[in-house]
Amino acid sequence: MSLKLYIGNKNYSSWSMRSWVLMRQAGIDFTEVMVRFDSFQPGSQFKTTLQSVSPVGKVPVLVDGDAVIWDTLAIAEYLAEHFPSLQLWPEPATQRARARSICAEMHSGFNALRAHCPMNIEASLPEVGKEVLKRSGVQADLQRLATLWTELIEAHGGPMLFGRFTIADAFFVPVAKRVQTYALPLPHKAAQYVQSLCQLPAVQTWVAQALLEKDFRDFEEPYRKAGAPT
Amino acid sequence: MSLKLYIGNKNYSSWSMRSWVLMRQAGIDFTEVMVRFDSFQPGSQFKTTLQSVSPVGKVPVLVDGDAVIWDTLAIAEYLAEHFPSLQLWPEPATQRARARSICAEMHSGFNALRAHCPMNIEASLPEVGKEVLKRSGVQADLQRLATLWTELIEAHGGPMLFGRFTIADAFFVPVAKRVQTYALPLPHKAAQYVQSLCQLPAVQTWVAQALLEKDFRDFEEPYRKAGAPT
Repeated sequence: MSLKLYIGNKNYSSWSMRSWVLMRQAGIDFTEVMVRFDSFQPGSQFKTTLQSVSPVGKVPVLVDGDAVIWDTLAIAEYLAEHFPSLQLWPEPATQRARARSICAEMHSGFNALRAHCPMNIEASLPEVGKEVLKRSGVQADLQRLATLWTELIEAHGGPMLFGRFTIADAFFVPVAKRVQTYALPLPHKAAQYVQSLCQLPAVQTWVAQALLEKDFRDFEEPYRKAGAPT
Repeated sequence: MSLKLYIGNKNYSSWSMRSWVLMRQAGIDFTEVMVRFDSFQPGSQFKTTLQSVSPVGKVPVLVDGDAVIWDTLAIAEYLAEHFPSLQLWPEPATQRARARSICAEMHSGFNALRAHCPMNIEASLPEVGKEVLKRSGVQADLQRLATLWTELIEAHGGPMLFGRFTIADAFFVPVAKRVQTYALPLPHKAAQYVQSLCQLPAVQTWVAQALLEKDFRDFEEPYRKAGAPT
């Protein structure tokens, strides 16, 4: 089996990072295909390349022979089924149900945090962090993360949410990077979990490669507005 | 095993409908707990009741003894694991990967259609439908649905996306109801699929019960604005 994972720029692509870190940290062999973010408009190099691979034209995409899987959650389930010995989900059914619930929550939620604190690994933006914290949605998202992480760390003893590394941890890795970039405050155990995620070898490798990119995109980022002369 | 499914108003709650139709159509026995939408604000009856069951305070929630599963996708995976003989996902791995990809796409996408055409089973709003079609996001969402459905119906011969009923069909049931409510145009095979979904016995039962509710909520719905005197 030869797996191919299409990803976007490592500095920016939080959804790519989830799949990549999951595979790398779990020791799954794969070929990486990086499709540079030029623009997300129809006709851009990025869209054209991705649309030749998957119907939605987004990253990440996992290709395994005939199978094309175009969403981070679907990729995770595919890998969990194909590598049962790796136990990518927690083994007890109740824990697995919980892990899936929080991954799905991440998949469709935490919108304020995602909108106001886009992943930007190379940046250090504590001043922007102070500003975005004034938005109630960001506070609520952070509070929910703190509760969610602390409960699971306490229930299973850490350092990962279910003890050892699982898909659930891969799903929160880009959030941990956001917490660092924007210096967002968290209670002790949640902050410690952010540290543990960032120390995972696969995360360190991704971050090192992101820092080498120096391929800065002119996205609409809150700090560009915050830093702009008024 | 005694399963309990928490849902919202049947006329409005599209995510509840996915889980409920999946279970009912697949013949899974469960107890239904309806939590009436009064408001989504903290402190409302709805939020207070749901928060005593699940950390996110949203519907649907599936409770199975100690296991609390609070997202439609996670509920689907939980049921697929617990009832392997029902084959809730397609059996071939490549089809299963595709089914999961489209469910995940539904889970985090089709935002224009969801925002401008909220599910409202009792209503018939073709005039609103004409208006919302002018929005490019809605057109693009409809086009993607038409392609996605037509390809799968052609590949597997219908009447459902993978031949027989699977989780993927349950995920598109509320979209089919939206197509009807707003009289949205679709090419022949996609329109036929909408008909097939609406004729599923579980869908007909849900719709009949939704029509009996007559519990109209003062949501922000585009047709209320469209219908308001100007």
